[in-house]
Amino acid sequence: MIDILVDKIKKTNAPIVVGLDPKLAFIPGTILDKAYKEKGKTLEGAAQAILEFNKGIVDATYDLIPAVKPQIAMYEQFGIPGLIAYKETIDYCKSKGLVVIGDVKRGDIGSTSESYAIAHLGSIDVGGEKIKVFDEDFATVNPYLGTDGVKPFTDVCARENKGIFILVKTSNPSSGEFQDKDMEGKPLYEHVGVMVDKWGSDLVGKCGYSSVGAVVGATYPEVGKIMRKVMPKTYILVPGYGAQGGKGKDLVHFFNEDGLGAIINSSRGIIAAYKNEAYAKYGEAGYADAARQAVIDMKEDIESAF
Amino acid sequence: MIDILVDKIKKTNAPIVVGLDPKLAFIPGTILDKAYKEKGKTLEGAAQAILEFNKGIVDATYDLIPAVKPQIAMYEQFGIPGLIAYKETIDYCKSKGLVVIGDVKRGDIGSTSESYAIAHLGSIDVGGEKIKVFDEDFATVNPYLGTDGVKPFTDVCARENKGIFILVKTSNPSSGEFQDKDMEGKPLYEHVGVMVDKWGSDLVGKCGYSSVGAVVGATYPEVGKIMRKVMPKTYILVPGYGAQGGKGKDLVHFFNEDGLGAIINSSRGIIAAYKNEAYAKYGEAGYADAARQAVIDMKEDIESAF
Repeated sequence: MIDILVDKIKKTNAPIVVGLDPKLAFIPGTILDKAYKEKGKTLEGAAQAILEFNKGIVDATYDLIPAVKPQIAMYEQFGIPGLIAYKETIDYCKSKGLVVIGDVKRGDIGSTSESYAIAHLGSIDVGGEKIKVFDEDFATVNPYLGTDGVKPFTDVCARENKGIFILVKTSNPSSGEFQDKDMEGKPLYEHVGVMVDKWGSDLVGKCGYSSVGAVVGATYPEVGKIMRKVMPKTYILVPGYGAQGGKGKDLVHFFNEDGLGAIINSSRGIIAAYKNEAYAKYGEAGYADAARQAVIDMKEDIESAF
Repeated sequence: MIDILVDKIKKTNAPIVVGLDPKLAFIPGTILDKAYKEKGKTLEGAAQAILEFNKGIVDATYDLIPAVKPQIAMYEQFGIPGLIAYKETIDYCKSKGLVVIGDVKRGDIGSTSESYAIAHLGSIDVGGEKIKVFDEDFATVNPYLGTDGVKPFTDVCARENKGIFILVKTSNPSSGEFQDKDMEGKPLYEHVGVMVDKWGSDLVGKCGYSSVGAVVGATYPEVGKIMRKVMPKTYILVPGYGAQGGKGKDLVHFFNEDGLGAIINSSRGIIAAYKNEAYAKYGEAGYADAARQAVIDMKEDIESAF
């Protein structure tokens, strides 16, 4: 799967993933009103609004970008209707040729991780019938439980040509509480990075990178610099650009000399661009056009940093 | 919420939680056949079988136990129909007076954890309407992201009288890869335990325990002994009894001198008891009665260890 992603990054010349994390506060009133009118102020109404909003963003940006990253929590909070919208978002994005990174951050003991891997990347066997479930292309995985919590995911990746990104150093302010602490000579995140490199060693594609990637936050560029060397064949998914504070110049160290090795996520900065002063002229009705312009500007910001 | 759980543990005299983790392989053929006949070998068919199986287990055990712990991965792998069965299982268990611990192991950056906390313990605001979503009583939480990944959960717990159990030392074989490593003088799990104690300090109930609990695996009793002292007011959810290898005598150290402080989970050992030689006489048709007997035997095993 990493070969497909890298190919799309090269074709679009954009190491960018748009985070489809649609809070209701981001959705224009006209979309909300229509959904509430048709389905009421219910989970179903919210889910309809989310899906319509997402489609607008995708229609306006899919030709510019290689991938999207829906954050499942933003859908899960709307219960079953929200999760239906999550699945419909995945399917819509795939129909537009986008690689879908399901930001699910799952991880559990072996037998349970196997079920999560099936849910998001594999197929479930029901009485001999093999049925695909959420069917993202990549999923994010939490490493706290160690190898037997990760292996079911890498097994499914090998079998179904899928990929994962494992949390190494997260973008949030308190990520250092455990991740940065010195553990037998190096920080926890570096131990995790070493393991990510190892877990991914059998899944290196033709592009030279592994389908087992890592998450390292844009808000910690100095960590990016170290981890780029610790995990030379690991693609790094970099959240935290834009709204969380990461800037283009901070991103250089996440890339290898081949200009590859990292893909930068922006969520609010793109999908809610029309709410930022810089894109205010688009207004609510132009939310999708504002998102398109924000993608173009982000691409330039990254390019100019090199 | 911890007061409600402790009250139920005292009333049933059973520090036991039954893990409702219904793999299809555990479900009697008659239930599967009926579901497949009505809904086909589909996600809907699987979900129907799971729900009927769960109801049988719950009907046979609810008067003996304080709580159940459905593992959401076992439902998520059946997609939307599976998650509907998860929600229906929660509602059915609550209608029987059981405390429901949603084993979801969620955790993310602050704004995203807030959505997960809403999804599982809180209410979502849709145009001014407050709607409960999955509405478990407790949820399990992954600590890898630190305080700002946990605080949205404790905020919701305070607001809605709910609880969480945070992963400290998991029951799986490779949990030690990161959790046991020495970090500035003590293992990572102990650092997490210290933080769990701190995160829960404002949520101590009348029973003397906090609504912020911890997960420590039965498979590591020596860790239980240490963590019992590190987190004196923390209730410990103990998975890994039975099928994973934990035994009654291993459990003593997880409890305080008041006989409280721990609740032991068994999943396969109860719900698939009829597949064990010891309960083979019940047969498939008696799967629920076998589960009831397994609960009684587990209760005796724990009592005899004191």
